[in-house]
Amino acid sequence: MFSHVKDLQFEAKPDGPDALFARRLQEVLGGKWGELTVANQYLFQGWTCRLPGKYKDLLLDVGTEEMGHVEMICTMIARLLEGAPQNLHEAAAEDNPMLSAIYSGQNPAQFIHAGGGPLPVDSNGVPWNGSYITASGNLMADFQLNVTAEAQGRLQVARLYHMTDDPGVKQMLRFLLARDHMHQNMWSAAIEQLKADGLEDMPVPEAYPDAEQENEFAYRMLNFSAGEESAEGRWASGPAPDGKGTFSYEPQPRAHAPEPILPPGDPRLYGTPPPTGGGLIGTIKDALT
Amino acid sequence: MFSHVKDLQFEAKPDGPDALFARRLQEVLGGKWGELTVANQYLFQGWTCRLPGKYKDLLLDVGTEEMGHVEMICTMIARLLEGAPQNLHEAAAEDNPMLSAIYSGQNPAQFIHAGGGPLPVDSNGVPWNGSYITASGNLMADFQLNVTAEAQGRLQVARLYHMTDDPGVKQMLRFLLARDHMHQNMWSAAIEQLKADGLEDMPVPEAYPDAEQENEFAYRMLNFSAGEESAEGRWASGPAPDGKGTFSYEPQPRAHAPEPILPPGDPRLYGTPPPTGGGLIGTIKDALT
Amino acid sequence: MFSHVKDLQFEAKPDGPDALFARRLQEVLGGKWGELTVANQYLFQGWTCRLPGKYKDLLLDVGTEEMGHVEMICTMIARLLEGAPQNLHEAAAEDNPMLSAIYSGQNPAQFIHAGGGPLPVDSNGVPWNGSYITASGNLMADFQLNVTAEAQGRLQVARLYHMTDDPGVKQMLRFLLARDHMHQNMWSAAIEQLKADGLEDMPVPEAYPDAEQENEFAYRMLNFSAGEESAEGRWASGPAPDGKGTFSYEPQPRAHAPEPILPPGDPRLYGTPPPTGGGLIGTIKDALT
Amino acid sequence: MFSHVKDLQFEAKPDGPDALFARRLQEVLGGKWGELTVANQYLFQGWTCRLPGKYKDLLLDVGTEEMGHVEMICTMIARLLEGAPQNLHEAAAEDNPMLSAIYSGQNPAQFIHAGGGPLPVDSNGVPWNGSYITASGNLMADFQLNVTAEAQGRLQVARLYHMTDDPGVKQMLRFLLARDHMHQNMWSAAIEQLKADGLEDMPVPEAYPDAEQENEFAYRMLNFSAGEESAEGRWASGPAPDGKGTFSYEPQPRAHAPEPILPPGDPRLYGTPPPTGGGLIGTIKDALT
Amino acid sequence: MFSHVKDLQFEAKPDGPDALFARRLQEVLGGKWGELTVANQYLFQGWTCRLPGKYKDLLLDVGTEEMGHVEMICTMIARLLEGAPQNLHEAAAEDNPMLSAIYSGQNPAQFIHAGGGPLPVDSNGVPWNGSYITASGNLMADFQLNVTAEAQGRLQVARLYHMTDDPGVKQMLRFLLARDHMHQNMWSAAIEQLKADGLEDMPVPEAYPDAEQENEFAYRMLNFSAGEESAEGRWASGPAPDGKGTFSYEPQPRAHAPEPILPPGDPRLYGTPPPTGGGLIGTIKDALT
Amino acid sequence: MFSHVKDLQFEAKPDGPDALFARRLQEVLGGKWGELTVANQYLFQGWTCRLPGKYKDLLLDVGTEEMGHVEMICTMIARLLEGAPQNLHEAAAEDNPMLSAIYSGQNPAQFIHAGGGPLPVDSNGVPWNGSYITASGNLMADFQLNVTAEAQGRLQVARLYHMTDDPGVKQMLRFLLARDHMHQNMWSAAIEQLKADGLEDMPVPEAYPDAEQENEFAYRMLNFSAGEESAEGRWASGPAPDGKGTFSYEPQPRAHAPEPILPPGDPRLYGTPPPTGGGLIGTIKDALT
Repeated sequence: MFSHVKDLQFEAKPDGPDALFARRLQEVLGGKWGELTVANQYLFQGWTCRLPGKYKDLLLDVGTEEMGHVEMICTMIARLLEGAPQNLHEAAAEDNPMLSAIYSGQNPAQFIHAGGGPLPVDSNGVPWNGSYITASGNLMADFQLNVTAEAQGRLQVARLYHMTDDPGVKQMLRFLLARDHMHQNMWSAAIEQLKADGLEDMPVPEAYPDAEQENEFAYRMLNFSAGEESAEGRWASGPAPDGKGTFSYEPQPRAHAPEPILPPGDPRLYGTPPPTGGGLIGTIKDALT
Repeated sequence: MFSHVKDLQFEAKPDGPDALFARRLQEVLGGKWGELTVANQYLFQGWTCRLPGKYKDLLLDVGTEEMGHVEMICTMIARLLEGAPQNLHEAAAEDNPMLSAIYSGQNPAQFIHAGGGPLPVDSNGVPWNGSYITASGNLMADFQLNVTAEAQGRLQVARLYHMTDDPGVKQMLRFLLARDHMHQNMWSAAIEQLKADGLEDMPVPEAYPDAEQENEFAYRMLNFSAGEESAEGRWASGPAPDGKGTFSYEPQPRAHAPEPILPPGDPRLYGTPPPTGGGLIGTIKDALT
Repeated sequence: MFSHVKDLQFEAKPDGPDALFARRLQEVLGGKWGELTVANQYLFQGWTCRLPGKYKDLLLDVGTEEMGHVEMICTMIARLLEGAPQNLHEAAAEDNPMLSAIYSGQNPAQFIHAGGGPLPVDSNGVPWNGSYITASGNLMADFQLNVTAEAQGRLQVARLYHMTDDPGVKQMLRFLLARDHMHQNMWSAAIEQLKADGLEDMPVPEAYPDAEQENEFAYRMLNFSAGEESAEGRWASGPAPDGKGTFSYEPQPRAHAPEPILPPGDPRLYGTPPPTGGGLIGTIKDALT
Repeated sequence: MFSHVKDLQFEAKPDGPDALFARRLQEVLGGKWGELTVANQYLFQGWTCRLPGKYKDLLLDVGTEEMGHVEMICTMIARLLEGAPQNLHEAAAEDNPMLSAIYSGQNPAQFIHAGGGPLPVDSNGVPWNGSYITASGNLMADFQLNVTAEAQGRLQVARLYHMTDDPGVKQMLRFLLARDHMHQNMWSAAIEQLKADGLEDMPVPEAYPDAEQENEFAYRMLNFSAGEESAEGRWASGPAPDGKGTFSYEPQPRAHAPEPILPPGDPRLYGTPPPTGGGLIGTIKDALT
Repeated sequence: MFSHVKDLQFEAKPDGPDALFARRLQEVLGGKWGELTVANQYLFQGWTCRLPGKYKDLLLDVGTEEMGHVEMICTMIARLLEGAPQNLHEAAAEDNPMLSAIYSGQNPAQFIHAGGGPLPVDSNGVPWNGSYITASGNLMADFQLNVTAEAQGRLQVARLYHMTDDPGVKQMLRFLLARDHMHQNMWSAAIEQLKADGLEDMPVPEAYPDAEQENEFAYRMLNFSAGEESAEGRWASGPAPDGKGTFSYEPQPRAHAPEPILPPGDPRLYGTPPPTGGGLIGTIKDALT
Repeated sequence: MFSHVKDLQFEAKPDGPDALFARRLQEVLGGKWGELTVANQYLFQGWTCRLPGKYKDLLLDVGTEEMGHVEMICTMIARLLEGAPQNLHEAAAEDNPMLSAIYSGQNPAQFIHAGGGPLPVDSNGVPWNGSYITASGNLMADFQLNVTAEAQGRLQVARLYHMTDDPGVKQMLRFLLARDHMHQNMWSAAIEQLKADGLEDMPVPEAYPDAEQENEFAYRMLNFSAGEESAEGRWASGPAPDGKGTFSYEPQPRAHAPEPILPPGDPRLYGTPPPTGGGLIGTIKDALT
């Protein structure tokens, strides 16, 4: 159960309006790697965590914090959209050569649909959707995804940082960069903790029995692209990170199974039949009548 | 530029048909963490890699291999769908009590749309889409995603392994499990290599200047969920994995900014205006005429 | 900024597992009219409300409550999925004739993707998406949508109530029905309050000047479907609900504009050109070279 | 069964081209609240209405009219796109400083895909989809949605009205505003009629037995957001609009169920298991072999 | 402008209910190749046809007819859903072994969302969307798509014909098969007519100047897959169907451009930089401060 | 199984950057009719082709070639994005009046998400999805779709050709135009070959028995749109292209079935019931308790 205070976790106030940046900022609100993703992902992971205690609490802590980031970015976008030109003639009338660019580069739905506010969409207006999040029930797989989400998220915020000169916007981005910094470290530490607690290791899922996979292929790098530069990395020789095998390199991998020949399908599905003596179609028709 | 041989990388032949499993197998073909995802993700990452040499070659090698896995699973699904009951009465007529369950649990589009073949969709029939993949240009962010993709992928194949008794299907899954095992190790080794080459480290992006973030928040765990179990993990105290800071724990985080008060919007957007003395609506109407 | 307690707003515990119902229950979690919709809709409406005070507070109150309903339903689904048959043979082996039906009617992704947990999807596995919510900035338009959301939501829960016999499930549904009852009343009362406060009325947007619309068409019912039963309702004669006009009925509406004739397009767009004397294509080719 | 005349219900002819407005106008063609939505929604509601007579006729009348609005807006967009600059150099060459803004703010797919015509997409190019419409079978729930659709639709048209100076465009918008005015009144009157006919009332569904919900929660406003401004509205005290209960206000709502503890899942789903004495993973592996 | 009569173009009445078939029938209502697709596709093509006369009239004729097919299938689905079991226990209680299969194979949203009616979705519940249709402005391209749509549509109806034994359902399908038969012929005749009228030919667009393409590649079959069976068809030698060239066959196609080497990107995008002497990251950080 | 060489099939190198064109070029990469569509479509058709030999080989040849076109366009987009302005002030600072237009018309996600690279999306940023492709199992239906795909694809490339002046870009487009020219001819020849081999003919599916359709409607053009211009084409009289029937024209088509009256639904679905004597709702409530 949640409760809410109206104060913000951190300030979200631009020094001035900027409808173009308001469109771009949507990427870290409703894009694949935005705040809606991490908030919902951590909460779903927490709610379905079957291991009570510190991991579950961690997931719910951070998921709840991220809801507050959603709120901050929504607030920032609403403020950035104030006073935007509503039509091209208005944009052209002002003594500011950038206004027509600002008008033409807007997300029109932020005005027509949202009345000058944020939308749960990305920087192109594509709606956020539930496939962006994963709560697999396996904490190692999910913590790796969480490290990734914070890395991709921080990368995007760092790019946005150079797309604006507004001091107020930059201040909020600096806060988000710091939190994404923390969260990358945190999920990495959680991976170490999972290993230290003996709960999960590489490869995921660790509990799947080694004897039940084709181990001949479990440490072999296959070179399907011309050139052998890929033999030069740590992934092509020496011990594997899981500590249980040694990498090898196969310059010219071979196929292990012959060309598959599929038999004809059910005639009622009307796939193209194999050629036979004349009258085939008629024969099928008769059979189907 | 690609070329193709018709032989398969590994055998993809069930001992018998199973339309229910053919539906489930779609998850690792066209689901978020399926083979279409890894094939396209690694190829896009390779094509846009601005660093010639071993990393780019690695990405293209593995992306090309994964195209061959797409082919294997498509072939397997086409074979699993052979001989499936085409209507409920046919299913009921056979002396096999499972047939009606098989009929009712099918993905109907595998027959109506694909004529008894695979579709680029997940186990519920939702189409694969391009938002499943990311090629960010930052190799550390992407290699972390690639470890994740192989972990989630192997987890799903391991679950599928227990959803069938068919020896031919199990053999193919054992191969996929081994390759996902290899690829988890491989992308982990690539992360180590990136660090060893001095190209990228934590947090992503490493090149973003520390001085340009609110460092006060960069190592602090905030407890937004009642209970302090989350203080018990490695993420709440001690050195952070990036080796540059020390975790701290804040049991009762405070808000750092006051409640945001948004001013009225442009009247032409018809947001509900603040209440004033009588005649407000009329005044606005007059102004807008 | 949010905080969270781990206790639930109301109990979410089935008396036994039921994977079929767990699939159906997804409709009110991640479907168009599910809890993810109302939670996000009210919060976005609240965050972008430009009118401080009771309306904004109301939106944030209820949005925050709905986050707790998301949590309850996620918990319920995770519990309903426990102990489900993992393959058809297992289902058939048990002495329970319903097990194979339960297996074949499952959402497979709840197991393969979510490891026996909820997903942010509807009852067919289609992901929730951001287009399900609207925060228009106009409170009257949004409160009407909110009444609708609670009506459609309660209707769906009432239907689900008859799809299960489990006492624990029914208890949770009874709670959700009561809250949807409250929320229908509440948003209706909020509409009355908006009118009482003189902020907004019908038609939305009230502030749009009457003189700026074609008033000839503003109260006229047009009969485009054969038969005149539609003349029998209150919408076809008598005073309109907005108190400003009188309904009329036009049995045979006429067209007010001639057939539109579009001129040829830019030849560089290669639309099919109008027929002219011979050699047209060649002429265009020459012009384009 | 439908028939069609080529004349338009109302004129749809701009005084001049405007590719930027053609992009914005897509919102009320193929956006969530656009004409494709209302046309399809009313027709689906009509076709599945199980109550013959005036309500069904009304739905089919208005749905058929809305098809004609789809036609009008398609025509308008095709005309607005005529003569648009096809590349940046062409835009720059003209002695019109707005042309480059018009070029860069276009929807490129209107040219590349549609050859200078409309698309069934919104103002950002996101395709219209079937989840935008609802035909629930319950007329009260659907008529409330229909009021909403006309309110949101009219709001959007009113906003678009200020985004253009073209007299021809404004004339068509004035017509659409009048029809949305009528339809808001009409669906409101239909709600009154449903009540007058004794068919349905609040809360939806009215037929669900009161005894089958947790009535303790059916009239209580819960304050989950700090501050008690939400106690000041009509929704927090006094009689509820359904005339059957009295609102109350709970300033500090409590949780009614303890923290949910989920048991371990099926080991074949490879969720992270609870920590036990050493050798856990090995034990699971042995069990799974 | 449209008008509607309530009679159906053809009967749509099953002899009995069948919820499983009602789910399957959704494929030809709201699937990619369903009636919503052809209705909207032909209407959009007609409304944006810039060539007045017989082609435009044809498109509007058939699009209007297809709206009547949408109506027929909606009606059929509503009738097929009557009397369906609403829960598993009800299904098991009846003395009909197929009832539990029917319950578990239903589309649950047809009941929970639509109250026992059709939805604008496909046989898996995925919503119809606007990307299913194309109106390109080029009649030859679009008529070819229309032939395809009728071919894929008729194929699907023919498959559905074998998935039911219900005489009433089969009667409606026989009608749809006949209309799809007609429409395949009709669009093929329209292609012939376009050629006869000298308006468009192969390849599309015909007006694009031959001199403006790399004609060396315009008639050459390239063999990228091992084995040369593809040399045996009419596409590999002899005159091409456009009558302007001769096919040739290249057994081992070569690459025509060297490996692309991309330069480093803007450092503010934080792509992984090329390795240089030590201190790279630090240098970038300094530059970015 | 695939292999890859790093050389490109054809050069993909612009003479200079152009972020606006990079956005437009996405349409033929990740749009409905782009290279991802044809590559995946032909491969899926090939993998599930149940007819070994020249057709299957052809599909795999061309699908593999198209993967190389995906690579070319990805490379081109990455190069076009180099050196683009990263914020409006930077754009305004340069002495180039087009720069602000270029900034405001960019796809922001190409920078924020992809770090200056391509995305699997269309020209508006909408992700490519699996519903764009069809592999129906019926070669005639699929070859017709393939002709269409190449026609729509070539049409789009021809339009793009006029949206740029860059010689390097134009050179690559000329190559793609030639290949689309070839492929239109090739799939047309494949249709002829299918007929020559006696495998499939019109209408699709040819094997469906004529006796099993309502032949009365199989050659009749129905005029649902006012005006009889549609009687003037080859589709309205004379022999049909399938050589088995004669077209006729029906100026005023009639309905063949009466208005459908649907009975009341299951009361547990809470559809609005038919009006009866007073107390209806109460009666239903009692029955449901």
